[in-house]
Amino acid sequence: MASPDPALLSLNTATVRERWNLAQMIDGCARHGIRGISPWRDKLDELGAQEAARRIRAAGLTVTGLCRGGMFPARTQAARRAAIAENLKAIDDAAILDARCLVLVVGGLPAGSRDLAGAREQVKEGIAAILPHARACRVPLAIEPLHPMYAADRACVNTLWQALDLCDALDPKRSGALGVALDAYHVWWDPELEAQIRRAGRTRLLAYHICDWLVPTTDLLLDRGMMGDGVIDLKRIRAWVERAGYRGFHEVEIFSVRNWWQRDPDEVLATIRERHRRCS
Amino acid sequence: MASPDPALLSLNTATVRERWNLAQMIDGCARHGIRGISPWRDKLDELGAQEAARRIRAAGLTVTGLCRGGMFPARTQAARRAAIAENLKAIDDAAILDARCLVLVVGGLPAGSRDLAGAREQVKEGIAAILPHARACRVPLAIEPLHPMYAADRACVNTLWQALDLCDALDPKRSGALGVALDAYHVWWDPELEAQIRRAGRTRLLAYHICDWLVPTTDLLLDRGMMGDGVIDLKRIRAWVERAGYRGFHEVEIFSVRNWWQRDPDEVLATIRERHRRCS
Repeated sequence: MASPDPALLSLNTATVRERWNLAQMIDGCARHGIRGISPWRDKLDELGAQEAARRIRAAGLTVTGLCRGGMFPARTQAARRAAIAENLKAIDDAAILDARCLVLVVGGLPAGSRDLAGAREQVKEGIAAILPHARACRVPLAIEPLHPMYAADRACVNTLWQALDLCDALDPKRSGALGVALDAYHVWWDPELEAQIRRAGRTRLLAYHICDWLVPTTDLLLDRGMMGDGVIDLKRIRAWVERAGYRGFHEVEIFSVRNWWQRDPDEVLATIRERHRRCS
Repeated sequence: MASPDPALLSLNTATVRERWNLAQMIDGCARHGIRGISPWRDKLDELGAQEAARRIRAAGLTVTGLCRGGMFPARTQAARRAAIAENLKAIDDAAILDARCLVLVVGGLPAGSRDLAGAREQVKEGIAAILPHARACRVPLAIEPLHPMYAADRACVNTLWQALDLCDALDPKRSGALGVALDAYHVWWDPELEAQIRRAGRTRLLAYHICDWLVPTTDLLLDRGMMGDGVIDLKRIRAWVERAGYRGFHEVEIFSVRNWWQRDPDEVLATIRERHRRCS
């Protein structure tokens, strides 16, 4: 399979978050010929959305997504309303950045709850509540199905199938306002993956994230691998995504407390470029 | 919801494997009024299947399953043949024990491979190869879907849906020779769980395992919780399982290197009895 276009590479700021601030990340992307960037909101707050947007534009970068909205389920009505308010602000930030999407990590079980179906219902209500503002701001919302090991504490949307069902329920006309962020790390194991990528199609595929699954994985959250160091068949998944019509960026998001977060970010970015070409 | 019948409680030997040998486990079950036991083969080897069967019968216990067969995928034909031979021997042991089923942990990716679809095909071929012997010995084979976080290194069958598709492909007449071992820990997150339990029905539900998902979970393999200490809605899942016609045992299998494995097994068994009644 042909190597991917290096112009489609994007850096998710989580990958170098321990050693660089947002300004350094923007400069780093420009220096390494990386054309996309996807900031997390903690990094955005360092500069403010307006100034960040100015610098990102000046560097010629595309914002492939803003991380993150979501986290809807909560024990009380008041807390759910607060989550929605926070999401509306995230949509505003995404609009300022001209982000391709706002990534939604939807949230897990409220503290003390075992009601997974109820949490999923709260997610649906939360997205329904913010969708009109997202449409008005022309910020597509990208539901990110997270690996089932995060169902309790991070996201109770755990398969692409489930995410697409949510999209169909809330945006039946496939308007472009609602879709998914597909992260290979979260979905590579899914027997239904190929079929559901086809179902998603170009309209629903708003972002594509890559990294690798290490064997063994020593931490549920912070032990993701660089492309090529694990077992995910990234070329095969990219082929499915491209066949479905996706032409967007390939965003590299690596949580790696013991390896990549310890290294010189310039080394990390050079490695990303090389592995993107060779292993994804 | 009514408490479950304590006569349905079964002890998977993994739960107390660090401090008791099989003979102690058999005595312990009898002492605590636990009527079922499910040995792992390493423990079985301590006594040999014949002697273990004799002692288990003498204690009046039912063998709710033998753990485990499976581990089919491998790099070479020779290694795959060796896995099948090992499975045939496991079936023989299960027959000697009069086990309700042989649990199949099917295996993950062969070393160095990223071909998940290929591994899944090897699993199908492996089960097909041992099914005639299992039928002849009247040992039902129970495919255990494992949590997706084990897809690479333990089992590439990761949802109940997928396991039931395998059953339907290999045993379309629902003969009773092939079904599933449903472990709440592995499947609790699945949005399709209720529907697939219904699909499984009494014929395919050969075993039901319980423990709990802890938040946070600090180790992918060895940090499972006692019923009631985590977030799984065990009562709801039991209701689904019972509604599907399952009348078998509730087998407690807890891998817990830092907590339960450190404790006095008599305390563990007493806790299991109490939590089974109150939290499952």
